[in-house]
Amino acid sequence: MIAQTPQPPYYAVIFTSVRTETGDGYSEMADKMVELAKKQPGFLGVESARNEIGITVSYWESLEAIRMWKANIDHLEAQLLGRKKWYKTYKTRITKVERDYEFDGLKS
Amino acid sequence: MIAQTPQPPYYAVIFTSVRTETGDGYSEMADKMVELAKKQPGFLGVESARNEIGITVSYWESLEAIRMWKANIDHLEAQLLGRKKWYKTYKTRITKVERDYEFDGLKS
Repeated sequence: MIAQTPQPPYYAVIFTSVRTETGDGYSEMADKMVELAKKQPGFLGVESARNEIGITVSYWESLEAIRMWKANIDHLEAQLLGRKKWYKTYKTRITKVERDYEFDGLKS
Repeated sequence: MIAQTPQPPYYAVIFTSVRTETGDGYSEMADKMVELAKKQPGFLGVESARNEIGITVSYWESLEAIRMWKANIDHLEAQLLGRKKWYKTYKTRITKVERDYEFDGLKS
């Protein structure tokens, strides 16, 4: 679902990836990482979609929260496995959300 | 594919959406908007994925380039149709990319 984030400013990590053919253990790890991220200080939400490429956007209160998540020991292990097994290529972009607006057809 | 963007800083527009059941004309319009965006001044690239939700991230040189794209007359028409027909709900986030890094398994 669309993440319910607070008023800007906050931070977003855009993770864009192309998978290998190796599915082994990937879904379990992806689910585990989402659960783990939710417990991190400063976590605000996550959105994810995949077909030819995958895009996962996670939202955070601060750059410090992002640094702590990147350095989380279980997450480091997942990153290593990601590079070894699951991803052909990926790009991570650390961004500051300056403005947001939404449309909700159910409300209008 | 993963967008080949220059060194930060640059800007990203994260557009997260949930579609209606109405598919009518959507793919054609989505393709048309990508072609149109590519011709806009300051456009740097776009990434898109969809399953339960859709995430489209477009990259831009400046906030001014984003403003001009938002105000493009054909794009305005597409936005209107989007709210009327194709989207249940969406959220747009304007962000500044401060840092990026990548992994390319083909190179390493």
